[in-house]
Amino acid sequence: MKVNKPTLVIDEQKCKANIDRMLNKAKKNGLKFRPHFKTHQSRAVGMWFKDKGVEAITVSSLGMASYFEEAGWKEITVAFPLNVLQMDQINELAGRVKLNLLIDNVEVVNIASSQLSHNVFIYIEIDSGAGRTGARFDDVEVIREIAEAVNRSEKLSLKGVYTHAGHSYQARSKEEILKVFNLTRSRIISAKEQIEDLSANLEVCIGDTPTCSVATDFEGIDAISPGNFVFYDLMQTSIGACSLSDIAVAMACPVVSKNKHTQEVCVYGGAVHFSKDSEEWEGKTIYGKVARSDERGWGEPLKDCYIKSLSQEHGIVKLTSIEFERIKIGDTLTVLPVHSCLTAEAMGYYLTSNGDFIDHYAQKNRDEPG
Amino acid sequence: MKVNKPTLVIDEQKCKANIDRMLNKAKKNGLKFRPHFKTHQSRAVGMWFKDKGVEAITVSSLGMASYFEEAGWKEITVAFPLNVLQMDQINELAGRVKLNLLIDNVEVVNIASSQLSHNVFIYIEIDSGAGRTGARFDDVEVIREIAEAVNRSEKLSLKGVYTHAGHSYQARSKEEILKVFNLTRSRIISAKEQIEDLSANLEVCIGDTPTCSVATDFEGIDAISPGNFVFYDLMQTSIGACSLSDIAVAMACPVVSKNKHTQEVCVYGGAVHFSKDSEEWEGKTIYGKVARSDERGWGEPLKDCYIKSLSQEHGIVKLTSIEFERIKIGDTLTVLPVHSCLTAEAMGYYLTSNGDFIDHYAQKNRDEPG
Repeated sequence: MKVNKPTLVIDEQKCKANIDRMLNKAKKNGLKFRPHFKTHQSRAVGMWFKDKGVEAITVSSLGMASYFEEAGWKEITVAFPLNVLQMDQINELAGRVKLNLLIDNVEVVNIASSQLSHNVFIYIEIDSGAGRTGARFDDVEVIREIAEAVNRSEKLSLKGVYTHAGHSYQARSKEEILKVFNLTRSRIISAKEQIEDLSANLEVCIGDTPTCSVATDFEGIDAISPGNFVFYDLMQTSIGACSLSDIAVAMACPVVSKNKHTQEVCVYGGAVHFSKDSEEWEGKTIYGKVARSDERGWGEPLKDCYIKSLSQEHGIVKLTSIEFERIKIGDTLTVLPVHSCLTAEAMGYYLTSNGDFIDHYAQKNRDEPG
Repeated sequence: MKVNKPTLVIDEQKCKANIDRMLNKAKKNGLKFRPHFKTHQSRAVGMWFKDKGVEAITVSSLGMASYFEEAGWKEITVAFPLNVLQMDQINELAGRVKLNLLIDNVEVVNIASSQLSHNVFIYIEIDSGAGRTGARFDDVEVIREIAEAVNRSEKLSLKGVYTHAGHSYQARSKEEILKVFNLTRSRIISAKEQIEDLSANLEVCIGDTPTCSVATDFEGIDAISPGNFVFYDLMQTSIGACSLSDIAVAMACPVVSKNKHTQEVCVYGGAVHFSKDSEEWEGKTIYGKVARSDERGWGEPLKDCYIKSLSQEHGIVKLTSIEFERIKIGDTLTVLPVHSCLTAEAMGYYLTSNGDFIDHYAQKNRDEPG
């Protein structure tokens, strides 16, 4: 790809293959597919899901929900604890779409209940071991208290239980992911069983890419809402959720400086483009793996070539001596990102293999492409 | 401050005090002040410098240079290796402002020389030990080669030598910072001496906040271009470059969830707001220190209260049991950031203590404030 500044390239073919694979897995297992759009945050990419018949989506903020509501989506889950300071935005959205919200504290039910002007649907968020948010899976008292409060409320309807098994990100093999998945599944199902007497047809929804990518037996699960799978990244590769060839976005970066003493080059591409996640890779801390750029995207990642450090706009790339000799100032290197969600967010748009620019919710003034 | 989503609050008084302190240090030492605007990236904050008589600024990209050129700045240094793929933008800018650019490879001189339509001024970037970019301070051959090539070129004028002592960020005390400063100073001066016979009145410019904050004897230095000092942050506090009370930006974050089992709360404020830098603080890895919000900003940071982890939109805050009892869902906590440059970049605007919103170059569509 011909670029003159850091540009996030999307491989439409790989991306659509990732979508197909997860959608087919959902269909095969009779699961409702509620893909999380926080990774791509793009109306254009969203259309690739819609074209396949997907109808319900998941997002991580009310602003993102509005962005996709404007693009015609009619059922949206906001997979973040209901923020009682945003009741105005919730009411506005709930008047236009079927809105599913997460609650993990009973106080929130009471505040929301008194301020809602439209009906919303509630997942009780369950902490199945990640320790981030959610009522603890075995805290029967709290789970029932929330369910009962929701049932008492006029505008809230209990939809089910939701968990993000974020601890799957600690896994480093398919076996470890499956261990997390099996424990998560038994915990979320047991949480649901605690409130089945209070409401019929409760949905069990799980939401992380590693377990959804690797698991094959979804008995007891009704819906999945993974997000990162749409692009994958080096972190997911390390976890064991995908292979390098599944990664569907990479940053094309101009080479601006060569250092013969260290056999390193500097690319235009830093923390403001990649964000700042790193990953252990073959014993080294890396901020991205380097591939050659080609006409429609990038080739195989180059062995032993990686971003070793990032500052605001600089990326320092460690190269083999052969690659160091080959690469010239003014060339472009393409970098597979460690964490595609944050990289896409930092960039705010994509360049397709066909040379078209497509949208991201976080589009920045400065980066108006084209 | 009353906010309903993560909002970066700027304390104008602290910020102006930081500006005054550095400006006075520059004046007292007879240094040209070329503040780096990559930290605040704001035309409004830029005016606070202009009002004090500052005339020349530093930025980290050509896009940022254009942003400030449009705001009336007439001398701009782009402290990033000249990117030969952006000659069009360079020519456009060089027609409108006095443009100072950094070069560390002779090939770049030759390419730029053949494509420039306006005059530009060149700093030879020197690597004084940080190992990022720059000709190595003791690589006399390369330094002279660049200087000679610049002198042969019609459109390029040799302005001086520039170094960013990025290794000062490894320091953890004033003494360690001074050690880096003294070595950096002797190295950049020796680099300049290697080319003094080729050009008169060469300027020696250094650019990092830690050394510029701590050093008092600038003999041999002509200009400084620190940037982070305008806000400071937890990293600079750890390094020994400032105190907690100098930090001039902090993120107001709604509390959305409480976990009685862990005595942690979740705030709306994650990696898309803070970016992802962490810092070792009293033996723990933290992503921000927590303070109470007040009417015009924030109070003293709360002892032993900090962000222990960030995901995309979630910040998990470790609290003492007293604070845990006190804080309610729907309250706001204000978080001092680890790295203010990346946090400001991630947010794209500021809220002042007076309740006004001010600009940032990376303004995002979604965050249009107000």
